[in-house]
Amino acid sequence: MNTPFVAIIMGSDSDLPLVENTIKVLKSFEIKVEVRVASAHRTPDVVANYVTEAEKRGCQVFICAAGLAAHLAGAVAARTVRPVIGIPVDGGPLNGVDALYSTVMMPGGIPVATVAVGKAGAKNAAYLAAQIMAVADPKLYERVIADRQKAALEVQAKDAALQEKLSKA
Amino acid sequence: MNTPFVAIIMGSDSDLPLVENTIKVLKSFEIKVEVRVASAHRTPDVVANYVTEAEKRGCQVFICAAGLAAHLAGAVAARTVRPVIGIPVDGGPLNGVDALYSTVMMPGGIPVATVAVGKAGAKNAAYLAAQIMAVADPKLYERVIADRQKAALEVQAKDAALQEKLSKA
Amino acid sequence: MNTPFVAIIMGSDSDLPLVENTIKVLKSFEIKVEVRVASAHRTPDVVANYVTEAEKRGCQVFICAAGLAAHLAGAVAARTVRPVIGIPVDGGPLNGVDALYSTVMMPGGIPVATVAVGKAGAKNAAYLAAQIMAVADPKLYERVIADRQKAALEVQAKDAALQEKLSKA
Amino acid sequence: MNTPFVAIIMGSDSDLPLVENTIKVLKSFEIKVEVRVASAHRTPDVVANYVTEAEKRGCQVFICAAGLAAHLAGAVAARTVRPVIGIPVDGGPLNGVDALYSTVMMPGGIPVATVAVGKAGAKNAAYLAAQIMAVADPKLYERVIADRQKAALEVQAKDAALQEKLSKA
Amino acid sequence: MNTPFVAIIMGSDSDLPLVENTIKVLKSFEIKVEVRVASAHRTPDVVANYVTEAEKRGCQVFICAAGLAAHLAGAVAARTVRPVIGIPVDGGPLNGVDALYSTVMMPGGIPVATVAVGKAGAKNAAYLAAQIMAVADPKLYERVIADRQKAALEVQAKDAALQEKLSKA
Amino acid sequence: MNTPFVAIIMGSDSDLPLVENTIKVLKSFEIKVEVRVASAHRTPDVVANYVTEAEKRGCQVFICAAGLAAHLAGAVAARTVRPVIGIPVDGGPLNGVDALYSTVMMPGGIPVATVAVGKAGAKNAAYLAAQIMAVADPKLYERVIADRQKAALEVQAKDAALQEKLSKA
Amino acid sequence: MNTPFVAIIMGSDSDLPLVENTIKVLKSFEIKVEVRVASAHRTPDVVANYVTEAEKRGCQVFICAAGLAAHLAGAVAARTVRPVIGIPVDGGPLNGVDALYSTVMMPGGIPVATVAVGKAGAKNAAYLAAQIMAVADPKLYERVIADRQKAALEVQAKDAALQEKLSKA
Amino acid sequence: MNTPFVAIIMGSDSDLPLVENTIKVLKSFEIKVEVRVASAHRTPDVVANYVTEAEKRGCQVFICAAGLAAHLAGAVAARTVRPVIGIPVDGGPLNGVDALYSTVMMPGGIPVATVAVGKAGAKNAAYLAAQIMAVADPKLYERVIADRQKAALEVQAKDAALQEKLSKA
Repeated sequence: MNTPFVAIIMGSDSDLPLVENTIKVLKSFEIKVEVRVASAHRTPDVVANYVTEAEKRGCQVFICAAGLAAHLAGAVAARTVRPVIGIPVDGGPLNGVDALYSTVMMPGGIPVATVAVGKAGAKNAAYLAAQIMAVADPKLYERVIADRQKAALEVQAKDAALQEKLSKA
Repeated sequence: MNTPFVAIIMGSDSDLPLVENTIKVLKSFEIKVEVRVASAHRTPDVVANYVTEAEKRGCQVFICAAGLAAHLAGAVAARTVRPVIGIPVDGGPLNGVDALYSTVMMPGGIPVATVAVGKAGAKNAAYLAAQIMAVADPKLYERVIADRQKAALEVQAKDAALQEKLSKA
Repeated sequence: MNTPFVAIIMGSDSDLPLVENTIKVLKSFEIKVEVRVASAHRTPDVVANYVTEAEKRGCQVFICAAGLAAHLAGAVAARTVRPVIGIPVDGGPLNGVDALYSTVMMPGGIPVATVAVGKAGAKNAAYLAAQIMAVADPKLYERVIADRQKAALEVQAKDAALQEKLSKA
Repeated sequence: MNTPFVAIIMGSDSDLPLVENTIKVLKSFEIKVEVRVASAHRTPDVVANYVTEAEKRGCQVFICAAGLAAHLAGAVAARTVRPVIGIPVDGGPLNGVDALYSTVMMPGGIPVATVAVGKAGAKNAAYLAAQIMAVADPKLYERVIADRQKAALEVQAKDAALQEKLSKA
Repeated sequence: MNTPFVAIIMGSDSDLPLVENTIKVLKSFEIKVEVRVASAHRTPDVVANYVTEAEKRGCQVFICAAGLAAHLAGAVAARTVRPVIGIPVDGGPLNGVDALYSTVMMPGGIPVATVAVGKAGAKNAAYLAAQIMAVADPKLYERVIADRQKAALEVQAKDAALQEKLSKA
Repeated sequence: MNTPFVAIIMGSDSDLPLVENTIKVLKSFEIKVEVRVASAHRTPDVVANYVTEAEKRGCQVFICAAGLAAHLAGAVAARTVRPVIGIPVDGGPLNGVDALYSTVMMPGGIPVATVAVGKAGAKNAAYLAAQIMAVADPKLYERVIADRQKAALEVQAKDAALQEKLSKA
Repeated sequence: MNTPFVAIIMGSDSDLPLVENTIKVLKSFEIKVEVRVASAHRTPDVVANYVTEAEKRGCQVFICAAGLAAHLAGAVAARTVRPVIGIPVDGGPLNGVDALYSTVMMPGGIPVATVAVGKAGAKNAAYLAAQIMAVADPKLYERVIADRQKAALEVQAKDAALQEKLSKA
Repeated sequence: MNTPFVAIIMGSDSDLPLVENTIKVLKSFEIKVEVRVASAHRTPDVVANYVTEAEKRGCQVFICAAGLAAHLAGAVAARTVRPVIGIPVDGGPLNGVDALYSTVMMPGGIPVATVAVGKAGAKNAAYLAAQIMAVADPKLYERVIADRQKAALEVQAKDAALQEKLSKA
């Protein structure tokens, strides 16, 4: 059996700095990742063929990052029944509201699991992918729980640092 | 040579009442029309195959009507270099703003000629298609000019009726 | 081992007509469902306790439906590392844009898989849950594929009906 | 009896520069303040425990600052019947409209007293807290009145400076 | 000493059906209420005089309901240092977004405690007023706590009813 | 009889750079101007008294510039029946949409003549004031006409410069 | 000399019910009115000729009502230096936000005095026109003042009716 | 017969940097271009005369770029039955949403083919014009197809570069 993996597709290589937030979190969970540049509009067959072939090779979750009239996640969702996560990219004059609406308002039957516009969404796409894969992977499930606990401790450490700072002020 | 025609594709048969505004105007210009129900998400290959084949058979303009995260016009534009007109459908809780952004904010290289949300747009998709085809068809050009003159007279007739009504009030 | 199930939580029993769209699709996939009314604001401990306990009993996906300042999905996501799907409910004077922003714009680390505002989203929450559970359930995966094929055929049948209708017109 | 105080909770320590506007105004009114970093999503129990315990120790008003899908004020309001003031933080690609809707559109029974997005709101959270505490504190009431009169004089001084400047122009 | 009371001012008597939600909750808390129709624009002196005089007679909280360019809460806040709660009314073509922005985006120094647009906000204005007055009234504080507990039980009763309904389905 | 004049009121002296666009145009039309800093919220009586007194001294048009929940123009309109022009200032996180709605959506009976958000509006407030005063001043009417003709020539000169530039490219 | 008058132009005769609010208020001020149906897009020369000719005949103020991409007020403003008032009509799927932006965001030099979207704006267009004409007409000025006083009394009468109603409840 | 050409009209010479994206693409397709500065509001007759005359000289497509209340494309569309493409310019405080609504929401009978706000739209205006002219020009049609294929290869080259970069990381 193939190693399960996450496929990240971005509409333009200019989205890489944003997507690196996604890759970093996925790697911290020891999840295998493939990253591709492909366009729903300029290379629709490349997208369709890659999605079909990746699903066969063991892709369990697709993550798509696109801006403006962001059709990429929907175009991928049309080609697979694996969960598709959409990151609305916040470039362009409308600051990503266009990408949000284009990603989240999918018609019945073809869902896209949409996360926040921009950087918070890029991170959360990875957390969500990990949670999804953990449904079938108890060890990953443990890693996700451990990460959540660590994040809680980080917030508490920031609070402790604030208390110390304020007590000196 | 094939008779040039306009292909109208709608994402759902529930869009037919809106699209009938488009068909009616096209027929008034004696333009040949094909109307199809096809979904960018549920039947992406049907869309791709139809567009490729219609272009070969002489389709000069594609008109796409879709609501919510309206990807249909973009998906069609990805498969043809004929002009693609997008009608954002005003169903759903966001009243068509989602469909407008999903249709108009296309990335560079794959244009969608977007018209108004809803009924005004459904009519104008047909007027725009007629104007485009008239670039290659001097007789159609004359019909479009005649229609414009008729529309001006109709506005003037409405004004005359108003003047009469007000003079009696 | 417990039977995996989906837990649907709605902020108010007035959301039941919307959520019935979700239940119906889940049942068509033979997925076990629990449905609860619980409020992130009026009964926060009930929510927290239920989520913790449901996760232990085998809940694989949580689906939350809420309107206005829709905090429910986020509050559930704070209590579990299972995937949480948020349906923004389109009640209230802002037509669900408030619920959409409150659901989708989650900070890094606590994702909510957001679907469309209103009815399309209520259906897609179930499709997405099925896709997620299918990652660990090959038979469910087959059912999801079969459903997708059926949906494609339905679109084609609607097109055929339209062609017949138009040919008679 | 405990000294009444205001508890400020912020979702992230990156909100401190904004919240310092709040602290400064509260101190000018000689109001005792506690400031905490705590997250509705990453440390929900820390939030719940702190709120319950602070209310017992004499906290009369809670002020919460959060951005994006800002659930913090609502999560605090779910744990206390003391007045909760929400400051929508204007970070992120949607410029704080998301935080505004997430904070203000609370369902019936669990109010959040929402102030303006960003800096004006950070100041006004403190003015509002002072007004609320002044309901039970006649001396504070006098200080708030005196501050209002001073603010009026400052506007008049700015007008006088403008008149002088314009008379020389 | 005068009995403390809440003054409700509405910009138009057409807002009474909405404001009755506020009155009903205030009365359930045994809070004394005055209700006035007065316009920030058509009767600015009536507003100014009433606010000044009501504050002297023991008004502890002002609640203002207005739609469109809703200036009433701000105009009242300019005349008192008692807490002012603003209910954005959801009439008019913009569905209350105009009233929300006009009410909540107050400049520094003159806060308006803004609640949700429409009916949820009308209720919450009363809950917030009760919470504010409870800062100085331990018995009212107990009543607010009891009401919160009752509301929690109501949610649980609705859930129980749902479980029974579903078990029979 | 008093010389007719325009009174410009701004909510904060930080609005002066914007308002200088207004002053400059008014001076080019040889219109007498008074400029004041006054706040609808911090100095409501100063605003009321100034407006009443200025109207008596011959003020024919009031121009008000304010941002956020911009109530100034409405507060002035409540105190005069002279035309009041509102400039929505584009500061703050919502970029002036809040100021626009707060200025333009006035209830029936108390109009504010609203111009564009920001710099274009600051200029147009002056042009509109000149047009209004020209209703009673034939010489000013001539100056406004002459200015319009000059503006047309400037556009034509820019076009000529562009043609020259392009012919050399 | 010609009797000064107001010219109302509407883009479509379907706007008449809205515009009747305007006509009624103008007539109550004994202001002479002309009402025309003319389209900036379908009959641009009719608009241009009417405006030029009406200005010569003594038109002092133009009022334009249009919806969607409402260009009518701007097109009229391009042809006259008399004040032009724009009423954004709230038809169509975007509820008049499109008409508001199209009317108010005029570039520098060509102002349109914009009033509220819909019915409140239709009334206020007439009040504003009366205020403008009153700059040159002392008797009209007195009528406008009297009307304002009457409106204040009406608000006070509504308050009195409310007090009586509440005292009986 | 005259050489067919595209006429680009911009409302202000400050739009030239944006419009250069359009010119560059048109020239790559060897399409003859005229570029003019003309204002729908300041020089309406220049616009009307140029459009009429350009249409007679062989202009097949008009492209209009304007910001704020962008009436230019509509004003041109009112004077020709050739296809008119509108580029909403993203200047001003509302980031081009005003220009988008003013351009796209045209009433029935006078279409404007609207492209994306800003730079993507400036490029796509040229692609769309080329597609329209290609309806009558088989050689241009071939160039447009070749360009599309080249764009696809560029995306694939970017993907190959990314794969190489990632393999080294």
